[in-house]
Amino acid sequence: MRIAVDAMGGDHAPAVVVEGAVQAARDGHNVVLVGREPDVRTELTRHAGAPAIEVVHASEVIEMHDHPVSAVRQKKDSSLVAGMRLLKEGGADAYFSAGNSGAVMAAALFVLGRIEGVHRPAIGGVIPLLDGRVFVADIGANPDCDAHNLLQFAQMGAAYMEHVYGLTRPKIGLVSNGEEESKGNALVLATHPLLKSSGLNFIGNVEGKDVTRGVCDVAVCDGFTGNVMLKLAEGMQELMLNLIRQAIMSKPHYKLAGAVLKPGLRSAGKRLDYTEHGGAPLIGIRGPVFIGHGRSNATAILNGIRAAARAAEGGLVSKLEASLAKAEAATV
Amino acid sequence: MRIAVDAMGGDHAPAVVVEGAVQAARDGHNVVLVGREPDVRTELTRHAGAPAIEVVHASEVIEMHDHPVSAVRQKKDSSLVAGMRLLKEGGADAYFSAGNSGAVMAAALFVLGRIEGVHRPAIGGVIPLLDGRVFVADIGANPDCDAHNLLQFAQMGAAYMEHVYGLTRPKIGLVSNGEEESKGNALVLATHPLLKSSGLNFIGNVEGKDVTRGVCDVAVCDGFTGNVMLKLAEGMQELMLNLIRQAIMSKPHYKLAGAVLKPGLRSAGKRLDYTEHGGAPLIGIRGPVFIGHGRSNATAILNGIRAAARAAEGGLVSKLEASLAKAEAATV
Repeated sequence: MRIAVDAMGGDHAPAVVVEGAVQAARDGHNVVLVGREPDVRTELTRHAGAPAIEVVHASEVIEMHDHPVSAVRQKKDSSLVAGMRLLKEGGADAYFSAGNSGAVMAAALFVLGRIEGVHRPAIGGVIPLLDGRVFVADIGANPDCDAHNLLQFAQMGAAYMEHVYGLTRPKIGLVSNGEEESKGNALVLATHPLLKSSGLNFIGNVEGKDVTRGVCDVAVCDGFTGNVMLKLAEGMQELMLNLIRQAIMSKPHYKLAGAVLKPGLRSAGKRLDYTEHGGAPLIGIRGPVFIGHGRSNATAILNGIRAAARAAEGGLVSKLEASLAKAEAATV
Repeated sequence: MRIAVDAMGGDHAPAVVVEGAVQAARDGHNVVLVGREPDVRTELTRHAGAPAIEVVHASEVIEMHDHPVSAVRQKKDSSLVAGMRLLKEGGADAYFSAGNSGAVMAAALFVLGRIEGVHRPAIGGVIPLLDGRVFVADIGANPDCDAHNLLQFAQMGAAYMEHVYGLTRPKIGLVSNGEEESKGNALVLATHPLLKSSGLNFIGNVEGKDVTRGVCDVAVCDGFTGNVMLKLAEGMQELMLNLIRQAIMSKPHYKLAGAVLKPGLRSAGKRLDYTEHGGAPLIGIRGPVFIGHGRSNATAILNGIRAAARAAEGGLVSKLEASLAKAEAATV
């Protein structure tokens, strides 16, 4: 599987993107770096003895603060858009970018298009749990949604967890401000009955706390709520590790015990680290497209490339298409 | 200061409410328990040697799953509503309930009414941070809001942090799915310019991660988003403590070090524990009304009563009125 990587995407591009791509190439992945060739080649020279990596030149760069749709329209030769074309034209089997996520979505829509019947593709995110993980969709592609969008996120999320993680009838929760059916904003109140009659394994409304307890495999929400949740989860992790660090430093005998425990605490923290969990899949698009965190380091890039390769190998898109067609047929 | 306490409100009422009220009375607080007198008296007999606590009988109970507005209309003699009347009629100076938060809001609106100029009162919540805290509003009263509502939450939140925590020109952040001004759902995009020209110390959009880093003193959002955030913060805390526990149990020498560190880790966890931080103020209502977590234990009830007493002593309501009148005058 050949993975097109947006070399200019992310807060620390191209340096960390190239570094992550080199690691992936060393792992045996077939990577194509798309971006400003001179800059990318300069970065590649920093990695002596690395396998040769193909570079496809693209002269423009879409910045994090660019308006997604207009940037994609205007910067046709940006790395972000050119990589997507490479996937479309068969020059790659999957795509990864840690760049402007709105622009990745817009480019995916323009260049690859939606799976038939999908109104609004979503970005899926994973929160690792004590035992397993929860797939949250949408985490940012669609800040404003309607109930039908959320129904489709549930259908696509279920298919993703079935085919990528091998779950049978994944449990679907609807993120709300209370477990009771009467709780919710206007969107949640309108979505609840659709999920109830969807044929999915819908367990009802879930609160923030239920999500982290793993009561559902897929947590459905609009992209605004999902994005706030995912970033708050990161922030809480950071806050707690800092509080623990502070506690350890407060007394000499804590410091000693803390030194012994350090590797254990580090591995606990790593369990929740987004950089360990690859990119976020764009679900509902005709192609395996993965978006990395803007703040991605090289490990995050490497894991994003791995996730994209896995999805391409597993035929994710055709499986999503089949699932949605089945759901559609059931409602007709 | 005399605090009216809804004895029947919360998942573990009346037992833990009475227990918390007894603790408050032992601390010298003047508490009035409102609820089914026989049940409340039975609970009171479990606390031998407790100071005498006045009980005001109310025959009905509003349940957690009751529809807020119709419950308040129909159950006029519920503890939740009767306690609010006691405050209105001068029989109490502040009010606390761990019951159905929507019903507390509805009762506060019907019985006490809004501060002049306030369109939608909000519930404020506190997330404790490494250094200080952030006040989040709304955390659940208004699942659907408009931009003007959010502007007022910012004004009231600023006044709250000024008068209860002594901050000067509190920093206001607008919760969004990105720091850039161009990011947000329709509500956030409409609110941003209002906050910019409000005269408040508005620092711009804040992501979930910024909130826990303490970049702002007041995080403004609709009640749906705020509720999901607060409960996810709780859930992440629980998840991380479980992960750490798992790490500690994984190796014999970790277990030893863990035993030494236990009190330190416990105090770190306690820093984030909602039961330590009192109830959530209902801001924008003509009276100091505090709502406790439905899952409140006796300590949470005690701290809620303390917070209500502090607010009443500080003249919170008249200070909010003055702040809002000033904001109003500035925009005319």
